[in-house]
Amino acid sequence: MQTLRVELGERAYPIHIGAGLLADARLLTPHLAQPRVAVVTNTTVAPLYLARLSDALHAQGVELISIVLEDGERYKDWATLNRIYDALLERRCDRKTTLIALGGGVVGDLAGFAAATYMRGIPFIQVPTTLLAQVDSSIGGKTGINHPLGKNMIGAFYQPRVVLADTAVLKTLPPRELSAGLAEVIKHGLIRDQAFVAWLEQNLEKLLACDEPALAHAVRRCCEIKAAVVAEDERETGVRALLNFGHTFGHAIESGLGYGEWLHGEAVAAGMAMAAELSRRLGLIAPADVERINALLRRANLPVAQPGIAPARLLELMAVDKKTEGGRLRFVLLERIGAASMRDGVPGDLLQQVLAPRTG
Amino acid sequence: MQTLRVELGERAYPIHIGAGLLADARLLTPHLAQPRVAVVTNTTVAPLYLARLSDALHAQGVELISIVLEDGERYKDWATLNRIYDALLERRCDRKTTLIALGGGVVGDLAGFAAATYMRGIPFIQVPTTLLAQVDSSIGGKTGINHPLGKNMIGAFYQPRVVLADTAVLKTLPPRELSAGLAEVIKHGLIRDQAFVAWLEQNLEKLLACDEPALAHAVRRCCEIKAAVVAEDERETGVRALLNFGHTFGHAIESGLGYGEWLHGEAVAAGMAMAAELSRRLGLIAPADVERINALLRRANLPVAQPGIAPARLLELMAVDKKTEGGRLRFVLLERIGAASMRDGVPGDLLQQVLAPRTG
Repeated sequence: MQTLRVELGERAYPIHIGAGLLADARLLTPHLAQPRVAVVTNTTVAPLYLARLSDALHAQGVELISIVLEDGERYKDWATLNRIYDALLERRCDRKTTLIALGGGVVGDLAGFAAATYMRGIPFIQVPTTLLAQVDSSIGGKTGINHPLGKNMIGAFYQPRVVLADTAVLKTLPPRELSAGLAEVIKHGLIRDQAFVAWLEQNLEKLLACDEPALAHAVRRCCEIKAAVVAEDERETGVRALLNFGHTFGHAIESGLGYGEWLHGEAVAAGMAMAAELSRRLGLIAPADVERINALLRRANLPVAQPGIAPARLLELMAVDKKTEGGRLRFVLLERIGAASMRDGVPGDLLQQVLAPRTG
Repeated sequence: MQTLRVELGERAYPIHIGAGLLADARLLTPHLAQPRVAVVTNTTVAPLYLARLSDALHAQGVELISIVLEDGERYKDWATLNRIYDALLERRCDRKTTLIALGGGVVGDLAGFAAATYMRGIPFIQVPTTLLAQVDSSIGGKTGINHPLGKNMIGAFYQPRVVLADTAVLKTLPPRELSAGLAEVIKHGLIRDQAFVAWLEQNLEKLLACDEPALAHAVRRCCEIKAAVVAEDERETGVRALLNFGHTFGHAIESGLGYGEWLHGEAVAAGMAMAAELSRRLGLIAPADVERINALLRRANLPVAQPGIAPARLLELMAVDKKTEGGRLRFVLLERIGAASMRDGVPGDLLQQVLAPRTG
């Protein structure tokens, strides 16, 4: 087991990474305010891992209720959030009940926002079960739900007490989910660590085959990068925004297709390819860099072009993105492979060229 | 004008108190992240004060959109909150738009929760227009909405950047609203300041007549008490819970009657009378103290008994109160007039006697 810390003063917390951690409830019990937890999970994860977690907690004398949601990004909405509130109230959960998210990014975002807002905030723990959640969404306290007019528009910054990343559970991930997680893995390298990009180029097939040491290394390196960025800028007033590389385009794609058509990581992959292309057209990176990025994404079985949405519609969706300020679109662009920066004032014609659908 | 500060480190903020402050937008502009605000108000307050505030802001070059909600506690729900989100998204408000609550407790709680959760948090300002909001709900960062199973069950702690309490607006308050505000004024004295209780006993008729110096004194003293308590315990893990004196009973009354039947302050008044009676039955205060409290509440035209709800129903509603821990009811009780404490383990028979309806 490896343990990192997200250094956030009084809100600092550990991330434990290793195979088989799900069965070790003693990693969780020191963080409970009382021996009572509510586990939020979904219909896909529950049959696989809920018993393992609940048996481990019961063995430590912890009372547990479970809330099993439908699976999918389309359920990241108010109606599902309300199901969590209803269950917590019906079971008389109080301010010292700990809410545990057992699942991927959708479960973590929903459960985290429920924890942030139930009785104005109850203790929260992340047990991510997808690669995407282990390397990205479970760390840093972003929680929320989608609004018909935009992704993650309603939410809160709310940090967990501990993150438990059991890399053994990644073996049951469908290949498409694994690839979607690799999009965020590749993102961490592209914006911050050129050497990690080179490592990914050498080890991508191992990751696709769920090779244990390779997965453990990738998860740890991404968590290190993310923890450092979050510690520097918890509420995204500066450097943290660079973690949104590919997300301005990606969110517009998800919203334009309808939530759940593409996985978040797939939309981010296409968004990164578009952001790389925009960086090239602005003269920041070379055509060979774009090709190198696209090649890596393709090897991970990820799309490198948007799925044929009209450019005008994408622009409209991007205009409500959270990164917009004073009506101006802002983009995370690459200065080189391994370094990103935030830019606005991108010429409209360059943007149009990048938005146009092409065969990927 | 008098200015107090709520000392909360990096979240510290001023409270300005005085007659006519609504027209002085220069008290607000230093706190704006960009010259763009969204004012949330209701159909009662808008015709009275929205133009005054918006003219003042326009004169300072601030762009303003307004969101006018229905008036009443029954609208403190998800549907109304969503109206705020929709308006903010449709008008392309971004993370630097400041949300201003212009109204009473319901507007402040709704707008504050919208500000806490729109794009994971945007700047927020309180401009309270009722006595209750000026002395209590606008200070301290409690925001939220009601759930069918309990009052204020969904919410967040989210501090404003500044509170602007214009005491001149209290002159247009309906007498019933003024009395409801006096319930919270009396509460501040009962839990923390015996001398202020004595002052209230001498000046209650002046307050009921909207005497300007008397109102200014009462508002300032309550703000001082509340600011000190909040600074000591922002997230209500200790002393702040004493501000809930009368609220465990009061919330159950509001919920049992249906939100909006009684004003919040009216329910709190009856709840304080019940909590005083419970304190007496536990031997903490004398019968004469209970009489003194009830006399003051009656002079303020407030109820001193619950409105005939079955005790079993009240108990059921109290069991989901946020102050419950591990299934045990906890009560704020009076040690004496001017000092409160938190107690659990209240004998069931004593509680039953207090819950029984009586003629008030």
